Amino acid sequence: MHIENSIITTIFKGISFSTEETYLIESKLEKIQLNKGIQLLEAGETVVHQYYVQKGCLRTYYVDISGKEHTLQFAIKDWWISDYTAFFSGDKAILNIESIQDTTLYKISKKNMDDLFFEIPKLETFFRKKMERSFASFQKRILSNLAESAKERYVSFVRTYPNIEQRVKNYHIASYLGITTESLSRIRKVLAHH
Amino acid sequence: MHIENSIITTIFKGISFSTEETYLIESKLEKIQLNKGIQLLEAGETVVHQYYVQKGCLRTYYVDISGKEHTLQFAIKDWWISDYTAFFSGDKAILNIESIQDTTLYKISKKNMDDLFFEIPKLETFFRKKMERSFASFQKRILSNLAESAKERYVSFVRTYPNIEQRVKNYHIASYLGITTESLSRIRKVLAHH
Repeated sequence: MHIENSIITTIFKGISFSTEETYLIESKLEKIQLNKGIQLLEAGETVVHQYYVQKGCLRTYYVDISGKEHTLQFAIKDWWISDYTAFFSGDKAILNIESIQDTTLYKISKKNMDDLFFEIPKLETFFRKKMERSFASFQKRILSNLAESAKERYVSFVRTYPNIEQRVKNYHIASYLGITTESLSRIRKVLAHH
Repeated sequence: MHIENSIITTIFKGISFSTEETYLIESKLEKIQLNKGIQLLEAGETVVHQYYVQKGCLRTYYVDISGKEHTLQFAIKDWWISDYTAFFSGDKAILNIESIQDTTLYKISKKNMDDLFFEIPKLETFFRKKMERSFASFQKRILSNLAESAKERYVSFVRTYPNIEQRVKNYHIASYLGITTESLSRIRKVLAHH
């Protein structure tokens, strides 16, 4: 499989690689095309991969004991996504991942990542920094759930995911905010009148 | 300053270091004794350090615009704590950290960590894995806020922080769970009768 250099340069922005390193990274990545509405991961499965979104949109969600869906995250262009708890620990997935648009991904396995970290230590630095940013966004989300009103959380959502509203269903957004679709409509109306 | 080898072995469990590496790490760590009720970090400050708790207990909390406190985390023996969002990004702290017991800490600056990562790459691996576990616990907390009742969240809290209830005030726990102290008492009564 040959991947054009540009995707490596896009994925690992700001890092330069030798030709050998580029070939090595290429050999560890696999391109995937998903139509809209495909289940990429189901709760209960072993999580071997993480995914880089080149274009399209994915959603990770949790189904509670009563069957209700709770959206943890959306992943758009240039985001990485997985059930990281399961990916890191080796436990079974508790999350589901589905494509909510036609999506182009690159996947990499945990084993291949560990091999790359060993061969190209600057990749470990890259992934550590990426993890730090994700960690920061999770911290922000927890504080927002504790301290902010549903309206304020909606405003944060729109800021975090610009231009996503046209692409995702209202019940996805509502289940991300922890509110009903009726509350979401009410909030939108209030904001539209300001 | 000389730190006995044992603390390095305790902090970095499972890694072996040469004598030179041990001395290098020692030179980058600083021991701190805090009495109960001391403010270690205040919102608005620059966050230069992260802290390893040898004994005692700290609490990170956010004060919202109305002056209400929201507890993000407790840190007990063998936990690392900081305002990581600010620590990683260089932004000002949005969290406060206070000791809620007499506490013994080791602090390390970001600059010293980066130096250590350069000199001893296995430390970068150690901190990446630690970050992965923290990330997983934050993911769990977000899902728990979305999907679980206050009673279920309280049960998770007790599981995450065993033996902490005697040490922290009820309003700390309530502000961690996002409920009032009255609701907390009600939940405890219900659980005591089962």
